[in-house]
Amino acid sequence: MSTSPAPLRTAVVGAGMMGADHVSRITKRISGAEVVAVVDPDTARAQAAAALAPGSQTFASFEEALAGVELDAVIIATPGFLHEPVILPALEKGLAILSEKPLSDTVESSLRIIEAEQKLDRPHIQVGFMRRFDAGYQQLRQLVESGEQGALLALHCAHRNPSTPPNYSESALITDSVIHEIDIVPFIVGEPIVSVEVKKPRRNSLAPEGLPEPQFVLLETASGTLAIVEINVNIQFGYQVTTDAVFESGVASIGRAETIQVAAAGQIGQSVTPSFKERFGAAYDVEIQRWVDAAHRGEIDGPSAWDGYLASVVADAGVLAQQSGRREPVTYALEKPAFYGGATAGTGAAASLATA
Amino acid sequence: MSTSPAPLRTAVVGAGMMGADHVSRITKRISGAEVVAVVDPDTARAQAAAALAPGSQTFASFEEALAGVELDAVIIATPGFLHEPVILPALEKGLAILSEKPLSDTVESSLRIIEAEQKLDRPHIQVGFMRRFDAGYQQLRQLVESGEQGALLALHCAHRNPSTPPNYSESALITDSVIHEIDIVPFIVGEPIVSVEVKKPRRNSLAPEGLPEPQFVLLETASGTLAIVEINVNIQFGYQVTTDAVFESGVASIGRAETIQVAAAGQIGQSVTPSFKERFGAAYDVEIQRWVDAAHRGEIDGPSAWDGYLASVVADAGVLAQQSGRREPVTYALEKPAFYGGATAGTGAAASLATA
Amino acid sequence: MSTSPAPLRTAVVGAGMMGADHVSRITKRISGAEVVAVVDPDTARAQAAAALAPGSQTFASFEEALAGVELDAVIIATPGFLHEPVILPALEKGLAILSEKPLSDTVESSLRIIEAEQKLDRPHIQVGFMRRFDAGYQQLRQLVESGEQGALLALHCAHRNPSTPPNYSESALITDSVIHEIDIVPFIVGEPIVSVEVKKPRRNSLAPEGLPEPQFVLLETASGTLAIVEINVNIQFGYQVTTDAVFESGVASIGRAETIQVAAAGQIGQSVTPSFKERFGAAYDVEIQRWVDAAHRGEIDGPSAWDGYLASVVADAGVLAQQSGRREPVTYALEKPAFYGGATAGTGAAASLATA
Amino acid sequence: MSTSPAPLRTAVVGAGMMGADHVSRITKRISGAEVVAVVDPDTARAQAAAALAPGSQTFASFEEALAGVELDAVIIATPGFLHEPVILPALEKGLAILSEKPLSDTVESSLRIIEAEQKLDRPHIQVGFMRRFDAGYQQLRQLVESGEQGALLALHCAHRNPSTPPNYSESALITDSVIHEIDIVPFIVGEPIVSVEVKKPRRNSLAPEGLPEPQFVLLETASGTLAIVEINVNIQFGYQVTTDAVFESGVASIGRAETIQVAAAGQIGQSVTPSFKERFGAAYDVEIQRWVDAAHRGEIDGPSAWDGYLASVVADAGVLAQQSGRREPVTYALEKPAFYGGATAGTGAAASLATA
Ligand SMILES: [Mg+2]
Ligand SMILES: [Mg+2]
Ligand SMILES: [Mg+2]
Ligand SMILES: [Mg+2]
Repeated sequence: MSTSPAPLRTAVVGAGMMGADHVSRITKRISGAEVVAVVDPDTARAQAAAALAPGSQTFASFEEALAGVELDAVIIATPGFLHEPVILPALEKGLAILSEKPLSDTVESSLRIIEAEQKLDRPHIQVGFMRRFDAGYQQLRQLVESGEQGALLALHCAHRNPSTPPNYSESALITDSVIHEIDIVPFIVGEPIVSVEVKKPRRNSLAPEGLPEPQFVLLETASGTLAIVEINVNIQFGYQVTTDAVFESGVASIGRAETIQVAAAGQIGQSVTPSFKERFGAAYDVEIQRWVDAAHRGEIDGPSAWDGYLASVVADAGVLAQQSGRREPVTYALEKPAFYGGATAGTGAAASLATA
Repeated sequence: MSTSPAPLRTAVVGAGMMGADHVSRITKRISGAEVVAVVDPDTARAQAAAALAPGSQTFASFEEALAGVELDAVIIATPGFLHEPVILPALEKGLAILSEKPLSDTVESSLRIIEAEQKLDRPHIQVGFMRRFDAGYQQLRQLVESGEQGALLALHCAHRNPSTPPNYSESALITDSVIHEIDIVPFIVGEPIVSVEVKKPRRNSLAPEGLPEPQFVLLETASGTLAIVEINVNIQFGYQVTTDAVFESGVASIGRAETIQVAAAGQIGQSVTPSFKERFGAAYDVEIQRWVDAAHRGEIDGPSAWDGYLASVVADAGVLAQQSGRREPVTYALEKPAFYGGATAGTGAAASLATA
Repeated sequence: MSTSPAPLRTAVVGAGMMGADHVSRITKRISGAEVVAVVDPDTARAQAAAALAPGSQTFASFEEALAGVELDAVIIATPGFLHEPVILPALEKGLAILSEKPLSDTVESSLRIIEAEQKLDRPHIQVGFMRRFDAGYQQLRQLVESGEQGALLALHCAHRNPSTPPNYSESALITDSVIHEIDIVPFIVGEPIVSVEVKKPRRNSLAPEGLPEPQFVLLETASGTLAIVEINVNIQFGYQVTTDAVFESGVASIGRAETIQVAAAGQIGQSVTPSFKERFGAAYDVEIQRWVDAAHRGEIDGPSAWDGYLASVVADAGVLAQQSGRREPVTYALEKPAFYGGATAGTGAAASLATA
Repeated sequence: MSTSPAPLRTAVVGAGMMGADHVSRITKRISGAEVVAVVDPDTARAQAAAALAPGSQTFASFEEALAGVELDAVIIATPGFLHEPVILPALEKGLAILSEKPLSDTVESSLRIIEAEQKLDRPHIQVGFMRRFDAGYQQLRQLVESGEQGALLALHCAHRNPSTPPNYSESALITDSVIHEIDIVPFIVGEPIVSVEVKKPRRNSLAPEGLPEPQFVLLETASGTLAIVEINVNIQFGYQVTTDAVFESGVASIGRAETIQVAAAGQIGQSVTPSFKERFGAAYDVEIQRWVDAAHRGEIDGPSAWDGYLASVVADAGVLAQQSGRREPVTYALEKPAFYGGATAGTGAAASLATA
């Protein structure tokens, strides 16, 4: 009797923490999609994740999944250098694609991806910059657009993690961590980043030997709005992402409020979220549900591959700035193609988000 | 290829604001269920809600829906006095049932419902006390259970609405509004309410003529924990539900934190949620998703009809206390049946919630 | 050359914690006064306090001090039952008098004091209800007077101490602790208290054996404004005094903010003040400086003996309510004399405070 | 009978807003000092301020005051370029000197002052950096010294004023405003500033024409701790001074809490202090009382002329950095003389403050 559309048959590629989380999310909380394939060369990991999605199958490679099961969509949660080999065949099959950030690991690879995508009739790739779906960032963007407090002049961003995984390198500060601010700053300001500079204060002795952090990354946008990003990834006490936005006549702050407040033992306070999963869990849910809904309509509803390309260009300049100690200009080789829906570089396909 | 279970074929009875909200929720955000029928004698309202669920049909009565479409489940969002006529036939059909609060409008009707339910093999009814699914209340219950701050001695509850709908009466303060605290207090404390008393301070001149509010409702539980509930439903500034829980060695507070903070025009502050939809939207989503998931397993996962019955007994005593000005004892005619899973009166079937 | 008035020659009677604190305050921070006598039958204690005020002398009794040194003023910091024997001779000498709360230990004694005072030309006694000088309470009173948020309907007051001194009794909950709210509620509301009722929730097992606390004390003012006071004096975590004032269209809260906020070890929060000295230290300084300044002008500038009498009547009713379990009316035997500056019972001589 | 020391006979030079405030403070709130002379060439202004101090006289110049009245102390509240002509004769007379910030308007003048002072037996000059006496900054310094959260790596400082007075210039951003952070950063970190760099984001269109602000001033201390100071002086909404201190394992924040919180009209929030007088009023009181107390002992108790000299050297580098756009090193021509009590450049004579 019901004529609801059939659920999106989805493969999840990469069965690590993030991939397994997406398998669980799609199965338990997302309407209109189901996981039919879990892809990972590590069989045990693939099977553990597939166990979360009754009826799903496991595959050692994306090619085998394409051959073995009917797919409508793919979520890519592998390391960045493995994105392109999944995205290109997925584009050929016309699948709806959600790529975790970054779009790819190099500017060159990002360019190849947006070139390949433009051979299709419309964007198929959405990049997993989940902060755009966080209630706080949404409200901040609305405040910018409303003009209520005048122009946005500067942003103080703090990005704090309790500790780093093994093999985390100095450049990862930019490419894995600040990449979120590299995406969200243009999203909030409404214009692209034009320069990057890095300042290195006194090193945290609790960071792994040889990792020179925290760092301050200064991102300047076209009209001069300056975002000062504290990237600080071994601060022990918890995961905390805050933004103070300085307008001409006021200041807006996000990321400081938590849920329950307890007064005990001479202190009154709140828990800090231990990881990004608690801090941004709701944003991930909204992100994936909106991506699924858009896929049913043949659209994307969030940052595009073009946004992924822009972020990779800024990240490149950022890594250079870490080495040079200088303000490095950011130069985009391309104008934004009409294919990606409009002329404003840097704000992405999700311009309508804030009004949602 | 996939062997996911077929979605729960669900009727939504009552297409007012709350019913329409559930239609939209099930369709857009809930995994594993779909709306196949919308029931409302007001055809236009039924059709408007059904338009949110592609493929659903409309019916003027629940009987017609039962005759016209295959159903697995029903959500009841009509006024309380219309719940029993839907619940009884739904029980006969063995449907999964989610009844918005209250379970019914009288203690007698509630008793008939739990009697009818006990003829089945297991509980089929879940009552829509959504606060049990709110992150803050979950954390508060965990804190009580942990014993970290000693016993819970008292609760300050504030329940504030900007204004009341037409025809809102004094007894509705108890039966429509404080009913949430009547459910959540035993949930948090872990024991039933044994007395109710009502204090009436100076009247708010902004309330409709003749409505004597705010009021303070004192709910006492078996071991003496005292909850003082401020019910205050024409306070203009917004919708605010706060709880300060007084333990032997500390105090925990929920409901005071919001999202974005703005400093402007001599003030620094945050928006207050305008209605229960913003304040408890996430709790409703979790509530319905968990009810759907449990229904697939043949279970409920939240407050039972027994909890609904308990609340109706307390509400009766509360309305009496409004009139008498005295402390009114609460007497439960029944011991908790084994059918409802255990001996602890007043804590409901959701004892495992806090560890979820 | 200078014609500044000579400093007020002040005796401090009672050299316990509070008395010694006043000796230090007058000497180190207060302009226009100096301590010339410290009175305590415990010689060691008297000398220790006098050491804080160079040039001061010690005496075993107030009579000896009167005989041995020229005095302009006296601060009384003995237990309440010892106030009258100091106040009466001090009135005869026409001294400026600051009596720590309570004015006296019984209503009868309070009556004798205000009778004696009225034989003089003007009020000489100020009672040490220091909360009237706290910035938060001042702002709250201003908000009431402004009428911006409509009438004040109710107050939630929490009065929490980490632990009690030896020999602290149930009636002391009223006479030593709630006495502060008994004074501040009429000050804020602008009208007298007309009834008292006491509710006793589950006992704190960390309180000394036999002390039934926390308690809730319900103070009702003439127009029906209801103050619900949580008195809770063994809560371990710190000293916390909060007030949430419920207006017709808004709510104002004081006492929740502290100074430095620290995020560490999974928590973000602030220190709670350990005692009344930190919480109300600034209020004490303002209180004493204003009392000294007023004494130079031949006035008082704060709660009068009349306010002290009113508080003693309410406290009497409160102790009765602890025993009876009933709402006890408060009956004042006297109308406010013109001597105490006006007809409004319950608001005291400090009506101009809020505009200072 | 009393042997209290005679009050410090004090001249206040400069009867503008700040000078008049000090006259009032000394007279009404400070113990152990009295204003005997008010000096200002503007007779009306001098008389208005003197009216606040009964018995004080007015003079058109400091020379006339020295000739006309016996003095123990002087407070200098004139513009900076007029400090030296008062300080030098005051040193010759051996007066206790409190100079409002800056010590003087040029490094050369500052050097002349510390040279002259060192001809005396001990420091006589205290500089009016009042933030050192603010409870929040005191607690922050204690936290640094405790080592509880590891080393201090970075500071985010925001310094926001609603608007600027006439004739406020770009260099005044450094010399009048950031001068406070130039003093407080070494005080907190415990080591001197070694470089300054200035970043200029998008201009606030609400600032006076030609004033390029806000600016970010990066102050680096000897071990690499980086303070990023947002100086932002036309932000309209109020006066706000906040500091977030980033430690190795935690973050401490000051300046965000205010007194009364109000929920009204869809918002919940607090007032922002309108000016430095409300924000730092208590700090000024503590500063002056401690200076008076120290003067009675023949000491200073706060930042010395040496601290004033250090600040002037950093301010010079800051103004240069505004023009050059580069990181400018800070070079101190002198080692800290033993006269100023110790070898640690940049932390000043107030090393014992935090333990007070
Ligand atoms: Mg799904
Ligand atoms: Mg669904
Ligand atoms: Mg004094
Ligand atoms: Mg003085």
